[in-house]
Amino acid sequence: MSETLLSLRARTARSSAVRDLLRLTELPHVLSLAGGLPAPELLPVAKIATVTAVILDTVGAAALQYGPTEGVRILRETVARRLGYGATAEHTIITTGSQQGLDLVARTLLDPGDVVVTELPTYLGALGALHWAGPQVVGVETDVDGMRTDQLEARLAAGLRPKMAYVVTDFANPTGGTMPAERRRHLAELADRYEFVIVEDSPYGMLRFTGETLPPVRRWSERTVTLGTASKILSPGLRVGWMTSPGWLHPSLVVAKQSSDLHTSTLNQRIIDALLNDEAWLDAHVAVLVRTYARRAELLLDSLDHHLGDSLQVQRPSGGMFVWGRLADPALTAERFLAAGIEQDVAFVPGSAFRPDGEPDGCLRMCFTTLADEQFDEAGARLARALASCAPAPVG
Amino acid sequence: MSETLLSLRARTARSSAVRDLLRLTELPHVLSLAGGLPAPELLPVAKIATVTAVILDTVGAAALQYGPTEGVRILRETVARRLGYGATAEHTIITTGSQQGLDLVARTLLDPGDVVVTELPTYLGALGALHWAGPQVVGVETDVDGMRTDQLEARLAAGLRPKMAYVVTDFANPTGGTMPAERRRHLAELADRYEFVIVEDSPYGMLRFTGETLPPVRRWSERTVTLGTASKILSPGLRVGWMTSPGWLHPSLVVAKQSSDLHTSTLNQRIIDALLNDEAWLDAHVAVLVRTYARRAELLLDSLDHHLGDSLQVQRPSGGMFVWGRLADPALTAERFLAAGIEQDVAFVPGSAFRPDGEPDGCLRMCFTTLADEQFDEAGARLARALASCAPAPVG
Repeated sequence: MSETLLSLRARTARSSAVRDLLRLTELPHVLSLAGGLPAPELLPVAKIATVTAVILDTVGAAALQYGPTEGVRILRETVARRLGYGATAEHTIITTGSQQGLDLVARTLLDPGDVVVTELPTYLGALGALHWAGPQVVGVETDVDGMRTDQLEARLAAGLRPKMAYVVTDFANPTGGTMPAERRRHLAELADRYEFVIVEDSPYGMLRFTGETLPPVRRWSERTVTLGTASKILSPGLRVGWMTSPGWLHPSLVVAKQSSDLHTSTLNQRIIDALLNDEAWLDAHVAVLVRTYARRAELLLDSLDHHLGDSLQVQRPSGGMFVWGRLADPALTAERFLAAGIEQDVAFVPGSAFRPDGEPDGCLRMCFTTLADEQFDEAGARLARALASCAPAPVG
Repeated sequence: MSETLLSLRARTARSSAVRDLLRLTELPHVLSLAGGLPAPELLPVAKIATVTAVILDTVGAAALQYGPTEGVRILRETVARRLGYGATAEHTIITTGSQQGLDLVARTLLDPGDVVVTELPTYLGALGALHWAGPQVVGVETDVDGMRTDQLEARLAAGLRPKMAYVVTDFANPTGGTMPAERRRHLAELADRYEFVIVEDSPYGMLRFTGETLPPVRRWSERTVTLGTASKILSPGLRVGWMTSPGWLHPSLVVAKQSSDLHTSTLNQRIIDALLNDEAWLDAHVAVLVRTYARRAELLLDSLDHHLGDSLQVQRPSGGMFVWGRLADPALTAERFLAAGIEQDVAFVPGSAFRPDGEPDGCLRMCFTTLADEQFDEAGARLARALASCAPAPVG
């Protein structure tokens, strides 16, 4: 059979559980907490129409022509300026979403068998990108403060030698956890001591509901690749992200980028640059996103508390798009709960999707961005009915 | 040093010679035949502005939101219908340019050490994409009719066992050669007999100056991945391409695509779909491209004949963007000629850039799309002065 022609990495790749699941949950009568999409009604359609018309009118053919592999200079400068902490346009690459940043850094750093440390659980797109480089992925336990760097330190002291640590420091996907400054500094110290690269991904950083913005890990270590994206704030469909890396790594990332897709859409880079530089508009736009998502997070938490009470232990996020829950009943898997939920027209993502080992962990990720305010109560009620339907029948 | 953290593939990757060269030739006083860009004055800026405004007005947020990994359904249907020969939307993926198609097929088919057959010389972006999968690349001699399939057959009979053959069948990059129907059928027969996959890339297929359009290789074999792109006809800067593959390969390509960049820009896919479906406009637009490029090809050939005569043997293309030349003097390398050319403010790409082994071959690729009609005579004159400056000083 022709399947024998597939490469080892292709034969061992698994399709994203979320992707397969989203197909089931796209039916209009399902109240889906499964996605990870920004609220469609808040995408800045009119603003993007205006800036696109201006770009095509003023920049013309240059916005539709081939461009530099690294990305257009103006956007690289904008990104570096906004990021700060030593970031430069010279060592910044515009990527086709931050997913591509993960793929590029995996290719350029990892040989098969190399060790990568991630949070456990972690972003499943990171697991997907890492897969193609063939590393050994080691998960480190997380709590509401992100990766337990004390546990990482113990593993390192015991001989673990990673080439790379991948962390989502602000309002992580899937747990919603945020790493405090002290842990960021600790992680940076470990990277410098044990000579590994930190890949810090912050897609949700601007979506902070409460508290102060924290410095990125690069504040404390130069061994950091910082990934960012316009997807959660401006538009995922334009596929514009960015990465800033140490000088020794940058040239290899550029060669990998060139082989991957030559460069990111020139027009879309210019659209994002225009939006990021209209600061009054951007501040007002982000304020609406934050206000809406913070309100929806509260509505979800209230609904879960009201309908499920102690049977679901939830972690309150201080920003982002996700609430993480753990079923109190250790005998119930999230997979079985999901099957019951789909019967009740409600959906979420089981925690196993975010684990390198894919093992059931009794946890669920719930995204609160895309339901309308008035739907959260009903979503909780459906989850409660699903949970009740999972209870074992009385003996007798 | 931190460079020791680089992966094997990153340490052995080379930057594109064209990319490095283009930096030298971007100065306005250089007459550059080195690029591979469409004529900027023919990019449909006003048309794209119109369709983009309509899409954002009618489709709205869906054009800016996340989309399916495979691409939006309407464009996949458009591509499959236009391609024909059994292509289906179901087995078509929209890619971020056809460069990404090359990367995805390399990942999903090739393990390190696997054999890939290419034309010699071949598209250097293909060599770049193949590099990351680590195969052994075997070049098969080409002539004006593309890959010498008789030589491939001899190699196969002698025991060569490729997993994949990569060919540009119409107006190839770099040679401008076009594979006649008989060779296409022969290649298909060899693929079926020896069980390898043909990756047929046709970015220039619509740019035919003379003769009849030929069926793609997939006409004769189902073991074919067909790559296409909007870059040469509509806009490279939108980064929209496509690939149609056998059913057994498609699911792995989708998983690889998902890990690479989730999906191609939703907005840009819709722009390209609108342009491809405005058939009256498209026909007129392509007719202008063909007329302009055919005229410029003649102007280049006339200028080379007038100024260089027999000292440069050229291959007349029947379409596309490139003329391929071979220096008559076997002692002169194209690299030395280029160095002399840059002194005279004229540039091209040496043939070595298109060889897996990177060896000098006394050949040059000349792109005729971006010079203005009145510049070709001067470009030939500068090449002649450069050639004269390469002549050895008279003895005595």
